[in-house]
Amino acid sequence: MMNRLKEGERLDDLQVKGYEIIQHPGRFCFGMDAVLLSSFAKVKRRERALDLGCGTGILPILLEAKNEGSYYAGLEIQEESADMARRSICHNRLENKIEIITGDIKEAAKIFGAASFEVITSNPPYMIEEHGLKNEMDTQYIARHEVLCTLEDILRESAKILKPKGRFYMVHRPFRLAEILAGMNRHGIEPKRMRLVYPYVDKEPNMVLVEGMRGARPRMTVEPPLVVYEKDGSYTRELLRMYGRNL
Amino acid sequence: MMNRLKEGERLDDLQVKGYEIIQHPGRFCFGMDAVLLSSFAKVKRRERALDLGCGTGILPILLEAKNEGSYYAGLEIQEESADMARRSICHNRLENKIEIITGDIKEAAKIFGAASFEVITSNPPYMIEEHGLKNEMDTQYIARHEVLCTLEDILRESAKILKPKGRFYMVHRPFRLAEILAGMNRHGIEPKRMRLVYPYVDKEPNMVLVEGMRGARPRMTVEPPLVVYEKDGSYTRELLRMYGRNL
Repeated sequence: MMNRLKEGERLDDLQVKGYEIIQHPGRFCFGMDAVLLSSFAKVKRRERALDLGCGTGILPILLEAKNEGSYYAGLEIQEESADMARRSICHNRLENKIEIITGDIKEAAKIFGAASFEVITSNPPYMIEEHGLKNEMDTQYIARHEVLCTLEDILRESAKILKPKGRFYMVHRPFRLAEILAGMNRHGIEPKRMRLVYPYVDKEPNMVLVEGMRGARPRMTVEPPLVVYEKDGSYTRELLRMYGRNL
Repeated sequence: MMNRLKEGERLDDLQVKGYEIIQHPGRFCFGMDAVLLSSFAKVKRRERALDLGCGTGILPILLEAKNEGSYYAGLEIQEESADMARRSICHNRLENKIEIITGDIKEAAKIFGAASFEVITSNPPYMIEEHGLKNEMDTQYIARHEVLCTLEDILRESAKILKPKGRFYMVHRPFRLAEILAGMNRHGIEPKRMRLVYPYVDKEPNMVLVEGMRGARPRMTVEPPLVVYEKDGSYTRELLRMYGRNL
């Protein structure tokens, strides 16, 4: 297996179905946001799911492990990340279930076609691009800032790619919540479910999980708080359960 | 003082500045939502604040008690509630600070004029009107359902009445959160601050407090959870603090 690894890469155990993922600690490693999104999103039997901006493939791999969908696709613009994702998929013998496409989210509807997926997931760049210095555009910077695609791009393309009543799952930062819910509404992906992730029960949330449905009526459920740490800094029982299954 | 009371009415102590309010238990009494909104909203020195749909006047009275604004107005369409509000204001000798206007929220901008207030508050009907049977249109029904005004009416009129950078504070139900944030955004009252109220720390929230600013840029703060009850059913310390001052 080790011949699948390039210099600086390592294999991390995903604690589910024996799956492992190739990561490069100097470039970008998946975070808690990906794990939480993979628990929040649901792919039903025979459904097809697309992850927009899949990086090294963490979402498609975790979703395949936990759901009964028939096919999982990941779109990634950075070839080096897409290549790592493909090697992880080979390594886990998931070639017949997961496919990684190198391409631009801004053209996702052209690449995949209209109304072609029941489920879309995305763990997009959170931060608004503010300067755009070329020399800062490394892998991590692109993954975290809206350099190559914006929230608006993701919503616009998702609205086209989702089938009617198809579901959209995203993790993002609460400071952009109004833009997220307003943008989803404007693109006809009506917000139906939301959960805020609070590091501690008395602190501001630092992540928001949101589910929308294409063409649904506007009425949503806000779920109980997802609290990450107990007062003593240990993980809460719910987080341990999610991580026990994944990490 | 008792000659201010009509049949079936009672005087309730507001636990702040010795203020009392006239209520009619068979009609409508203010709830925790009004108390929480009065703590969430801020009226600064010399600012003017308008409460849209003020009922028996709880918001203007509590806001006056806790803030240093120069003038508080309440708009109420039900004359019987407006009359009770006016009698409470007289009773507390607040005639020179608070004014109650009988009128329709749908015409609020005509009544008050454009860009006339720094602050607007509203504890509007939460429920969508679904049948409109005439015989159910009693005071409580009108206060709770969008019979006489909708969320859209409140946002449209508020956007006109607020001065640029004026602040809008509302309490509502989380199931309408997407409509609220999208509607505020559409009307140029950008959501800037939000707090979810969870009855228990592991339950779904049942209220949301939101602050918007006319003409602001889209970036918001989601505050720590406001938890109402401890596991044993007693009030949390934060709630006791709010209620200790008000109820």
